[in-house]
Amino acid sequence: MPNQNRRDFLKGSGLALLPTLVPASSLLAAEKFNKSFPANDEPISFFGDGIMYEPSAYLDVLQKANAKTPIERDRYGSGGAVAALEKRFEEITGKEKAVFMPSGTMANQLAIAVLSGENTKIFVQDTSHVYRDEADAAQSVFQKRLMPLAKDKTWFTADELKQGVESLKELEVFSSGIGAVSIENPVRRTDGRMIPVEEIKKISEYCRSNNIRLHLDGARIYMAAAWSGVSIKEYASYFDTIYISLYKYFGASGGAVLCGEKKIMEKMPHLIKIHGGNMYGNWTNAAMALIRLDGFEDRMKESVKSAATIFAALNQTDGIKVNALDNGTNIYQAELSKGIDGKKFRDKLRDGHNIRVGMPNDKNRLFLMVNESLITRDAASVIDAFKDALRSSQR
Amino acid sequence: MPNQNRRDFLKGSGLALLPTLVPASSLLAAEKFNKSFPANDEPISFFGDGIMYEPSAYLDVLQKANAKTPIERDRYGSGGAVAALEKRFEEITGKEKAVFMPSGTMANQLAIAVLSGENTKIFVQDTSHVYRDEADAAQSVFQKRLMPLAKDKTWFTADELKQGVESLKELEVFSSGIGAVSIENPVRRTDGRMIPVEEIKKISEYCRSNNIRLHLDGARIYMAAAWSGVSIKEYASYFDTIYISLYKYFGASGGAVLCGEKKIMEKMPHLIKIHGGNMYGNWTNAAMALIRLDGFEDRMKESVKSAATIFAALNQTDGIKVNALDNGTNIYQAELSKGIDGKKFRDKLRDGHNIRVGMPNDKNRLFLMVNESLITRDAASVIDAFKDALRSSQR
Amino acid sequence: MPNQNRRDFLKGSGLALLPTLVPASSLLAAEKFNKSFPANDEPISFFGDGIMYEPSAYLDVLQKANAKTPIERDRYGSGGAVAALEKRFEEITGKEKAVFMPSGTMANQLAIAVLSGENTKIFVQDTSHVYRDEADAAQSVFQKRLMPLAKDKTWFTADELKQGVESLKELEVFSSGIGAVSIENPVRRTDGRMIPVEEIKKISEYCRSNNIRLHLDGARIYMAAAWSGVSIKEYASYFDTIYISLYKYFGASGGAVLCGEKKIMEKMPHLIKIHGGNMYGNWTNAAMALIRLDGFEDRMKESVKSAATIFAALNQTDGIKVNALDNGTNIYQAELSKGIDGKKFRDKLRDGHNIRVGMPNDKNRLFLMVNESLITRDAASVIDAFKDALRSSQR
Amino acid sequence: MPNQNRRDFLKGSGLALLPTLVPASSLLAAEKFNKSFPANDEPISFFGDGIMYEPSAYLDVLQKANAKTPIERDRYGSGGAVAALEKRFEEITGKEKAVFMPSGTMANQLAIAVLSGENTKIFVQDTSHVYRDEADAAQSVFQKRLMPLAKDKTWFTADELKQGVESLKELEVFSSGIGAVSIENPVRRTDGRMIPVEEIKKISEYCRSNNIRLHLDGARIYMAAAWSGVSIKEYASYFDTIYISLYKYFGASGGAVLCGEKKIMEKMPHLIKIHGGNMYGNWTNAAMALIRLDGFEDRMKESVKSAATIFAALNQTDGIKVNALDNGTNIYQAELSKGIDGKKFRDKLRDGHNIRVGMPNDKNRLFLMVNESLITRDAASVIDAFKDALRSSQR
Repeated sequence: MPNQNRRDFLKGSGLALLPTLVPASSLLAAEKFNKSFPANDEPISFFGDGIMYEPSAYLDVLQKANAKTPIERDRYGSGGAVAALEKRFEEITGKEKAVFMPSGTMANQLAIAVLSGENTKIFVQDTSHVYRDEADAAQSVFQKRLMPLAKDKTWFTADELKQGVESLKELEVFSSGIGAVSIENPVRRTDGRMIPVEEIKKISEYCRSNNIRLHLDGARIYMAAAWSGVSIKEYASYFDTIYISLYKYFGASGGAVLCGEKKIMEKMPHLIKIHGGNMYGNWTNAAMALIRLDGFEDRMKESVKSAATIFAALNQTDGIKVNALDNGTNIYQAELSKGIDGKKFRDKLRDGHNIRVGMPNDKNRLFLMVNESLITRDAASVIDAFKDALRSSQR
Repeated sequence: MPNQNRRDFLKGSGLALLPTLVPASSLLAAEKFNKSFPANDEPISFFGDGIMYEPSAYLDVLQKANAKTPIERDRYGSGGAVAALEKRFEEITGKEKAVFMPSGTMANQLAIAVLSGENTKIFVQDTSHVYRDEADAAQSVFQKRLMPLAKDKTWFTADELKQGVESLKELEVFSSGIGAVSIENPVRRTDGRMIPVEEIKKISEYCRSNNIRLHLDGARIYMAAAWSGVSIKEYASYFDTIYISLYKYFGASGGAVLCGEKKIMEKMPHLIKIHGGNMYGNWTNAAMALIRLDGFEDRMKESVKSAATIFAALNQTDGIKVNALDNGTNIYQAELSKGIDGKKFRDKLRDGHNIRVGMPNDKNRLFLMVNESLITRDAASVIDAFKDALRSSQR
Repeated sequence: MPNQNRRDFLKGSGLALLPTLVPASSLLAAEKFNKSFPANDEPISFFGDGIMYEPSAYLDVLQKANAKTPIERDRYGSGGAVAALEKRFEEITGKEKAVFMPSGTMANQLAIAVLSGENTKIFVQDTSHVYRDEADAAQSVFQKRLMPLAKDKTWFTADELKQGVESLKELEVFSSGIGAVSIENPVRRTDGRMIPVEEIKKISEYCRSNNIRLHLDGARIYMAAAWSGVSIKEYASYFDTIYISLYKYFGASGGAVLCGEKKIMEKMPHLIKIHGGNMYGNWTNAAMALIRLDGFEDRMKESVKSAATIFAALNQTDGIKVNALDNGTNIYQAELSKGIDGKKFRDKLRDGHNIRVGMPNDKNRLFLMVNESLITRDAASVIDAFKDALRSSQR
Repeated sequence: MPNQNRRDFLKGSGLALLPTLVPASSLLAAEKFNKSFPANDEPISFFGDGIMYEPSAYLDVLQKANAKTPIERDRYGSGGAVAALEKRFEEITGKEKAVFMPSGTMANQLAIAVLSGENTKIFVQDTSHVYRDEADAAQSVFQKRLMPLAKDKTWFTADELKQGVESLKELEVFSSGIGAVSIENPVRRTDGRMIPVEEIKKISEYCRSNNIRLHLDGARIYMAAAWSGVSIKEYASYFDTIYISLYKYFGASGGAVLCGEKKIMEKMPHLIKIHGGNMYGNWTNAAMALIRLDGFEDRMKESVKSAATIFAALNQTDGIKVNALDNGTNIYQAELSKGIDGKKFRDKLRDGHNIRVGMPNDKNRLFLMVNESLITRDAASVIDAFKDALRSSQR
């Protein structure tokens, strides 16, 4: 679905782009499944890629973790929880060096700036965050020219990239050099759709054999991994650098990590400093992400499985159809039949079952985003809740 | 015709993008029509937008002019012939201030940089020189994001521009500001086609009512003026700044002028300096352009008229068809019938009549570029020459 | 003392540049003086400008505050605790708009970039953070030329600034424009010395009457205010923009605020974004600074008073001399007499009295930094502790 | 003499910074010494580093040269006279590749930009053109930080450079990297004084053993060579890149060459293009410089010898003292005794002997700049002319 339509859809459905917020009390029972994870009496939320704590819950999670193993402060990004997090991501991604970044924008921009060096052109998806959501930082700060491919689509193929590169010889007289390629996966602007790993392999091979560096905007790469079954390490292996968000599903109030080979990554601290991103401390973010990383992949596997069970059951039920998107990850499209009053349905789920979904739009459609809140209850009770809500909301 | 095809066409036809070169002797009879202009026994050339002198001719033209009115040297672009040229272009364009620039790239880039100020986005034609032939200077030096419209076409409409501007609100979350719009007219990459002046008016109105500044890359605006009948002053009136080339048809060995309101133009000398364009002297270029400006518009009117007469006559003749392009200026497409041997035809024109045309390609087609060399002979003799060449080159 | 000597001095004395760290337990009695403030049984520390909590204390402080009034999350710097903090600083500084910044470097750099606009030159102290500790961000990212004045000194006078500005007319042929003046006060590289407010007034008047914008790097302006008695609001009134650190004495793990008139400050969110500083959330930092701001000025007044009492008493005692620096703020120089064993003295204070001081250097000198930890005990007991330590450390 | 004083001096003396202008007729007898060189009845000028032709002379010189060997046009800096000039300078400097540049500012800036790469700091003389006369291009366009050494002096020593480099470790916490060192020799702002070649050697050795690249702003290096006896090739050998002006004494109306190793120089055409310096043709400048290069070093040797003879004789004469500057090149200080009326002296030389000198200032002092116009007459006649002028201008 092209972005513009999606936006309209979202407007109607009331589906926000935000992660699920969990109130303070949720932590009390969090230890049932995982210490940092909320319990049965807490909402299941079909918004967001992960659970984002409200302040009191956030502080509780950190304090409980600190009680077991004291959290250590970093100083200007060195040492303490930040260093521990970086080490962890080096293991996860198999890259030589991980560096904490204050934002995904900084991670993406510094990656492509360093990878491209003296060259100006960076190929990107037209729908990517780098192209559409970084306020032209690439051009206005980093003096790069972004070359969009795959308009309204999730990915460009290796062949399309090759054609894009080669057509420049025809289209332009002066060469300013191909600096790098940046790929977002999955793509938020195409409803979380992901790129087939086979295509990524081909793109990677093309880039390596043509001496073009390759960056992965993997802000939500854990969503891709959960739905594709491809490991983070394998994804990372196809790229020179990979950025992963710390707040979208790891609960940190902000921050990102960028991973890559030493030679590239050693330039980052200086660049972070001159761009003003060198905060005194980020242990609150790093510690939270470290806590949430524990068991995250397992919880996501469970969530995928549970979602499959639930949506299959619902599709056997009158009144609702839930469809996965082509190459989709955690975002599903649901459609209620005409006989269902969408608002009543949503209210019943919320008030009767503590399940949060968006308001269906005027076509009675809504998105359902799967995240780890789903596994705080068993699938059967969720199915029952939906059935009850459908029954109670007949027009 | 899209650029790629045009290129292939050109490759086959041997049509260079270069101006006509005139040997030294051509000046001897130049005074028949105009003092600076070559005479009957000199080649008519269907290449280039104007006559470009070989060194000896170049020096002769300058020396003759100097003998009448001494040429004065400029110092770092101030005073002398450069100041005189700037004054002349202020009158021609009706703009408050003209400034000599070493190159069209610098003129275009400084214009859009100053017009856009703190804003990042500049709308341009996909086929424009700014977008395709300035080696990404806008991004890599001036930190701007060029927004191409009208792929493979000569112009975008005011509506397309409006849509481009407004769609950003949907397509992008963060605004980096619309800085300016730059329009090339006529467009070299679309074979010199020009934008209808009515559309320019609409674009200008849209920009003015939306506080968007507008630049004209009028490198070849005199070609547009000659074929559209719209004066340079009128074209200039629709834009905040206008750049005009000094070497494409005014014979200078290099240089450009940029014209605009004082407030904008007063920033230019400093910008020229810091970008390294502040040469010690440019009187050789300014003086030549001043000389050639005299009577140029009249000579072009004659040239257009003569071309019309000649091509109409040829179209009555077997063996050749000459077509103007839609919205074309001085570039015409010619096609020889199959019975004509293209190489023989070209050679006969050259060797028998001192008329230069490109080598027809494998489809027996070639471009004919009209310029002021055409009026060094009367139309009838040119028509006869073509007829003779056609006769002599039957297969 | 010139920086180089100071550094050597510091090396010998073991005085770190870091704030005091307070362990988790310190919060238990924090409510004696102020809710966020540690109690009697906690260390007094003569390091740092303020108390910096260890993680457990940090989390406790936030949680207690949250229990009274729920802390609200910001989203990308909007709303919640961040908005509340910005509002608070607008009141404190009397400026129209405050904006949270991830780092002081970003605050300083964006301030001078926006204030200077198209002009290139920024006058600064040779000893300032902007000139010496921002890794050449001004030049390499913001394309500015820093013009250092007052080598090895804390400040330049209005006359020296005027001379610096005017001498350019003689020294340089091409003008690139005076963009702005940036002043750090107090200056960390000159041991926290501050600029007399009368000189600031003169500089401000000179700048305003010459249309030069003026920025205050007031990272530690609360230290200046406490020792000079000049209010934050008065300091701010002399400048177009003022930056204040949130971590040096307000306990936040990072962050800064920049305050100024709306027209200037409204450009900041976009600039923060394109430079990669737009984190998802900074409520942990903003909430902490808000908590600590309550009563901070009163506590500092008490601290200054207590330090005066203590140091006066010590100067009546054999074995130690404590001197304020000329124009000093919270950093004092102490010298032990030759008969005192510096290491024993330090150890006794630490182990016997829970008072932390640096290791005296080979000349038996050390710096004592006054901060609000001083008022967790009454002056008399601190005096007694020093006397006891002096007695016990006779060689 | 510090710059400021020099300027005042110049103001009083009427000594312009400009090259000598030679009227058109001067060429008639130019072939006595060298084909491109003016004759006896032409002015000797004690202004400027060389002869700069007025337009008619300029055109004559080019045309005569063209008559012997046709001048070939370049296209966008490729081929023709420009290529020939580049080849010539490759031989002269011993560098792999020479590239024509439109201005010395562009030559200097591109050299230091490429040599410094990702590093920010460039050490320069405080008195250098790069630091004082390029309008802050290094900072505002090329994002470099110039580090001035040797305030008010002609050069810094290798030791001072070393100290400047090493003190950064103490003075600054964050390293932004030493990019390059740029040296002007001779220095225009110190009245053409030159750096002892021994010091250059030491600086070169220091830089090479510390992996710091070294650029020579040799705009007037031929002046240094003429007075020091060190060859251009030897000077060039100590540097990675060397820029030489084409208009200060080679008569071109503008332009410069930059020479260096291939790897560095191959980046230049792209950089020239994106900075807007890629003019269509520069054959008028390149051809003139080529003509004047012939025999230039021999003529300068003659000029130095003649100046020595003339000034020695004058120093035996009452009423005038002429002194070479310490480490001076072609600029000498002359002082008239009080009994001489400076204005009369100047007028007599001009009107009676066709010798141009500046107006003595209120201390009866003036600068005499030696250039190749001196050898258009024999020394004896020049001496006689001065004696006559002194006699006739007694008060």
